Amino acid sequence: MKLIEELTRLPGIGERSAQRLAFHILRDSDSGILALSEAVRDVKKGVMECEKCCTLTSKPVCGICLSPARNAELLCVVESPLDLLAIEKTGEYKGLYHVLHGRLSPLDGVQSEDIRLKELFSRLSEDGGVREVILALNSDLESDSTALYIHQKLAEFPSLHVSRIARGIPSGGHLEYTDDATLVRALQGRQSF
Amino acid sequence: MKLIEELTRLPGIGERSAQRLAFHILRDSDSGILALSEAVRDVKKGVMECEKCCTLTSKPVCGICLSPARNAELLCVVESPLDLLAIEKTGEYKGLYHVLHGRLSPLDGVQSEDIRLKELFSRLSEDGGVREVILALNSDLESDSTALYIHQKLAEFPSLHVSRIARGIPSGGHLEYTDDATLVRALQGRQSF
Repeated sequence: MKLIEELTRLPGIGERSAQRLAFHILRDSDSGILALSEAVRDVKKGVMECEKCCTLTSKPVCGICLSPARNAELLCVVESPLDLLAIEKTGEYKGLYHVLHGRLSPLDGVQSEDIRLKELFSRLSEDGGVREVILALNSDLESDSTALYIHQKLAEFPSLHVSRIARGIPSGGHLEYTDDATLVRALQGRQSF
Repeated sequence: MKLIEELTRLPGIGERSAQRLAFHILRDSDSGILALSEAVRDVKKGVMECEKCCTLTSKPVCGICLSPARNAELLCVVESPLDLLAIEKTGEYKGLYHVLHGRLSPLDGVQSEDIRLKELFSRLSEDGGVREVILALNSDLESDSTALYIHQKLAEFPSLHVSRIARGIPSGGHLEYTDDATLVRALQGRQSF
């Protein structure tokens, strides 16, 4: 079935899941099917990047950037709008964000101009209010290199404190089942009791 | 986003998964988006129920029913086309199928005329070649009642052997972690060594 084929192109959807989803859609009402089909077709309609933080939004400037309740001294740099949503969901972070839309990956041909780095640096140049940049990138080779690159570039802003989110044992995690790389990071990042 | 809303209506897709899928689709090429949208819209086009076994197919009679290589003496009754696919994937079963498209569930208003029971019985009346009916329904109250109902109805065909798939500890399963109902079934269904 064509739909099963199309669905398996989506991330995390294997053949079995695609079959299950396709059969579910098949049993749906005609109006339900049309609604899903149109929502897919119109996915890009009205979606744009926020002029300030580059996250995806339906308005020129996103709600977070517009909110007076956010602490404009903190700027959290993430790779994707999904990472932003994950942090927002905790309800613990009250600063602003900057979404890179990727990370440097020379092997995949992703250079610094392909992600929103220029926007980050010009934003920091224009807005002197930011005191701390928190690098909340993923934890692998490319993301680490990207963090390092940003850190070096931010040396231009001597008044800026640059931090990165902690690496360590996840909450509820057991040392016994933790991989070596995480254990090494957890030991290196040990904090005074 | 409308698409996230629509995606969470699908089985097994929570809010996080819907977000991930929606953002993936958003980044897809326009032609990729259109292909998915049209595959959803056209999902019902050319899909029909097999005249013999009632599974979903693109031809009046499905490939399994048409195949001379299948053992027409064995008829496996399943609830859904997905169950049929799961059994086919094992490559171990060489008989035919009958797809009920549901199970009896009086509380949900699903009566015997709402599933393909009539088709099953008339098929058995017309085709005297079936020797054994294997009930491969799910394992819960409604499915068990449906199996019982079919078993009683099949008393009309005294030459027919009626069996049901075994219940027990799954392969690789540990007794320690097995629920009580499964353990009881496994004990009741013990077989000579």
